Formats: sequence, C-alpha cells, structure tokens
Amino acid sequence: MQTLYDYLDSGNGYKIRLLLALLEHPYRWVELDIMRGGTRTAAFLAKNPNGRIPALELDDGTCLAESDAILWYLAEGSALLPDSRLARAQVLQWMFFEQYSHEPYVATPRFILKHLPPDSPRRAELAQRLTQGRAALGVMDTHLNGRRYFVADGYTIADIALYAYTHVASEAQLDLAPFANVRAWLARVAAQPRHIPISYRPPPS
Amino acid sequence: MQTLYDYLDSGNGYKIRLLLALLEHPYRWVELDIMRGGTRTAAFLAKNPNGRIPALELDDGTCLAESDAILWYLAEGSALLPDSRLARAQVLQWMFFEQYSHEPYVATPRFILKHLPPDSPRRAELAQRLTQGRAALGVMDTHLNGRRYFVADGYTIADIALYAYTHVASEAQLDLAPFANVRAWLARVAAQPRHIPISYRPPPS
Repeated sequence: MQTLYDYLDSGNGYKIRLLLALLEHPYRWVELDIMRGGTRTAAFLAKNPNGRIPALELDDGTCLAESDAILWYLAEGSALLPDSRLARAQVLQWMFFEQYSHEPYVATPRFILKHLPPDSPRRAELAQRLTQGRAALGVMDTHLNGRRYFVADGYTIADIALYAYTHVASEAQLDLAPFANVRAWLARVAAQPRHIPISYRPPPS
Repeated sequence: MQTLYDYLDSGNGYKIRLLLALLEHPYRWVELDIMRGGTRTAAFLAKNPNGRIPALELDDGTCLAESDAILWYLAEGSALLPDSRLARAQVLQWMFFEQYSHEPYVATPRFILKHLPPDSPRRAELAQRLTQGRAALGVMDTHLNGRRYFVADGYTIADIALYAYTHVASEAQLDLAPFANVRAWLARVAAQPRHIPISYRPPPS
C-alpha cells in the first residue's frame, strides 16, 4: 500500500488527501511534525532529499515528491486529468502558476501568520507577499470569468491544486470579497461528491 | 506557425528555444522588452493574464504559459519525455522543484545582479536567496550522484528545465565548484547534438 508523508495543516498535503478521497484510493498516512524537524531527519531525507512533505512512497519503495507531480501521478487515467494534449498542458500551466505565482504569496503568509510566533521577523515579508497574493487571485478571477473550472470546463487536478490554499486565503489575511468568480468556483469545488476538508485526518492503518 | 513570446536573456525562455532547436521545430520568435513593460501591455495580457514570458501561441490562437508546461506540450511524443507513468511523474517532480526551490534562488539573484541597478533595494534579498540557491544545488548534486541525468538515465525536459539557470549560476554569484556532479551533468547536457547557447537569437521569420 502507498504511504503518504504529510502534515495535517499543509495545503500541499491536503491536495493529495483530497484527490485520494475523490478516487476512493486506500493509503497509509504518516504525519511528520514539520515544526519540529520531522522532515529533516536522515530517514526522511533519504526518501526526499529536498526535505519537504508531501511525499508519496510507492509499493516498490520509490518516493515521489512535489505535490502537483504526485497529483499528476495519481490522477492519470481518471476523469480528473483530461486526455487531450492541449488540456493536459493547460492543467500543468495552472499547476505551475500555483507553485510559482500563488503558493509563495498565499500559503507562505498563512504559514507565517498561523504557525510562527507573533514577533517573528518573517512578518516583515507579509506586505509584499500579500500584494502578490492579491495579484494571483486577480489572475484567477479574470480567467474564471465565464468558466466553471480552470481547464476544459471540467473539474481537474488543476482545480485541486489551486483550491488547497485559496479556500483558506482568509487565514493569510487575504480578502476574497473582491473576487466573485473565485468564490463561486470555490463553492463548486467544495460541492463535489466525496469532498473532504483540509482538517480531514485519515484513519490509522 | 507557432509564435514564441520571449526575452533573450530569460532562462525560462531559453528552455523553450533549446527544446525547439533539439526538436528542429520551426517557429516565429517575438521578443518583448520585459524591462520596459513589454509583458504588461493590454495586447500581451490578453494572451497571458499573468503577464510573463515565455508564452507559446498555437495555430488556433490559444496561448500557453509557464515554461515547464510549454516544454511538456512540445516534448510530448518525443524521446525527451519518457513513456512510463513513474518516469513522467519524476520529470514533473524535478520541474516543480525547479520552479519552487531553484528558480527563485538562482534566476532571481541573477536578475537582480544583471538587470537591476547596483543601488537597487532588491540587493537586500541576495544573501537569503543565495543560501537557498546553494541548498537547491546541493539537492541536485546529491541526486546526480551515480546518475547521468535527472530521470530514467536519459536526457529529458527535466534536464532542460534545470539546465537553463544552473549553467549561468555564476552570474548569480553562485559558485559551482563544490558541486562536481552538477558540473559533469552540465557538460553532458551541453554536449548534446543541436544544443544552442542562451544567447541564441532565432532568425527573423
């Protein structure tokens, strides 16, 4: 059985838990305490030398890292990853947008505000990061104008990738009120059958 | 014919030029001056609302953004993108590593040093970014120990994605001397048939 190394409050980890729930795919779940060096042990660095969760260990012991690469691997062959060459590239376009133009400006401020002490020097980064976070939400809102989902009018792993931190943007002090298309899309994603919240903790196995 | 919107000194743009040269794929090349708002015009924002090069305009007018998504689209069906499900996910793993853990810490310092004035306030970012750049090079060096390329022992678009800014790391004040596996891999990539340098400017079409 595949093992997911994860941290409950991680949006990147939640992407994988959400997809696995949608696919009704059984797995073993191991939580690592990222705040206390759980991803910096020799044992975990041997699995992922970049020292980050999520990581998915396959049956043969191969460990796959990077949340959006894991989504791709698991969704292959399902309706959550379209067939056409262009739609597949568009799924990747939005997943790379997520990691480069969205995650550092939505997930990182949320992490600073939620997991670091109130006197952390990293609070100095917030203003600049949140400006770029609002820009990313603006790009999403523009794209979603007249569209139900990010790619090919169907729910795909591009939506899962972008949903993970967008739906908790308020925890990063980002106000979604100006982004009506984004809010409607968030509701559409959350209404999918078998949807789970970010706080979903898989049962022990 | 497909049109590549690009900026000559961009490593992200160079990835696409390099792949197109390897594939002997004809295209139209349009350079935008990113230093003078060339990617912020209404005409370009209509093509890529995220306002970044590279962007590839297809024959039907669809515009594909994000360098690594464009690599994927163009390499599909070629030897530069392997067939197996696991190898394909590993290609993506290294491309997401490149965009999240490498590019901001290698490409961005190079941009600050090479394209912004010596008194730019952004120089304050350099020390922290370069520390993370060295960490990224260390992860690459560890992975390349005993390997010729990043995935499945063959040259793939994961190598192209990582080569683009790694081979000009010295322009970011990053010293490659401690990373012998990375240096040997760079030489291997540069020795490929039909390789072109980052300064390669496609002929007018």
